[in-house]
Amino acid sequence: MPEIKFCNVCGGQIHYQQPEGDNADRAVCSQCGHIHYENPKIVNACIIEHEGKILLGKRTIPPREGFWNVPAGFMENGESTRAGARREVREEVCAEIADMQLFGVYNIIQRNQVHVYFRGHLKGTHYAAGAETSEVKLFAPDEIPWEQIAFPVGITAMKRYVEEMKSGEFTIIEDDIIIDYEMLKKFS
Amino acid sequence: MPEIKFCNVCGGQIHYQQPEGDNADRAVCSQCGHIHYENPKIVNACIIEHEGKILLGKRTIPPREGFWNVPAGFMENGESTRAGARREVREEVCAEIADMQLFGVYNIIQRNQVHVYFRGHLKGTHYAAGAETSEVKLFAPDEIPWEQIAFPVGITAMKRYVEEMKSGEFTIIEDDIIIDYEMLKKFS
Repeated sequence: MPEIKFCNVCGGQIHYQQPEGDNADRAVCSQCGHIHYENPKIVNACIIEHEGKILLGKRTIPPREGFWNVPAGFMENGESTRAGARREVREEVCAEIADMQLFGVYNIIQRNQVHVYFRGHLKGTHYAAGAETSEVKLFAPDEIPWEQIAFPVGITAMKRYVEEMKSGEFTIIEDDIIIDYEMLKKFS
Repeated sequence: MPEIKFCNVCGGQIHYQQPEGDNADRAVCSQCGHIHYENPKIVNACIIEHEGKILLGKRTIPPREGFWNVPAGFMENGESTRAGARREVREEVCAEIADMQLFGVYNIIQRNQVHVYFRGHLKGTHYAAGAETSEVKLFAPDEIPWEQIAFPVGITAMKRYVEEMKSGEFTIIEDDIIIDYEMLKKFS
């Protein structure tokens, strides 16, 4: 997200300064005084299981074009986290989810993102490549191409899922994802 | 949040229109073409227990000035959901949290907010009225002033907490909060 330079209420020039009673610099309009707060964004995702396998889509857009991904995307105004995950699954892998449950909340501080993960089963048997997806495939746990998974959060969430699916006892956790930029450079 | 009228990158005029390949109207700059996405915001909160009682703070600022509230506030860039909840607890009720656990994800679609609730115990015995708080008090479950709680999400989360603390078996859920604007009018 580019730096804020102009006020989106009145078009005036922005200065970063600490408003009275605040404890951080904010984008404050020099003309109308409006304070533009910048906040983390939510990404909703769903790990979908079908007959012991996990449904992944291959990305056709940056970042991480050509890598496999758990269906996921930015939450929109006017929807719930659950509805957001359902929408992304429809858009990316043309599938519906049964038995949807919360699976985890992952903070990605380096990206100012919070990923809300769900888990569920494929409703029926239909899936297909949707928007921004070239290929959709079911992977058995030992077939998951870990080095070709698009994002660290997807790897972390799926590794826990694959471990917990052995017993069928699923947990719900909140955890931080630390992005290793050096490691990412090797792949991108 | 006011409607976007000017581009905060170049100061150009905004028109709401559907970008190619998108399925919703977005705030698009007529000058530089930048698309301003508007996304839900995250509020982090923590229900704090001490000797079977729950710690609440009385608000000194709108909305719902003078009402009791679970310590909560908007997540900032550069922090995790957990760190955000800790910060709000420090700011509002001058307390530290022990044994912090995820408690729930509550969608408030009417407000474009997602509230991430934690639960925990008071670390030590210290608490005090902080910023935007006039009074801090521990309430036994049967003393909680339900009609003087600031927000529906706080009521919903605390009712589940109070029920689950009987057995000590806490769940973690994702759920929607529906705001009854007519009911709120009676109190505000």
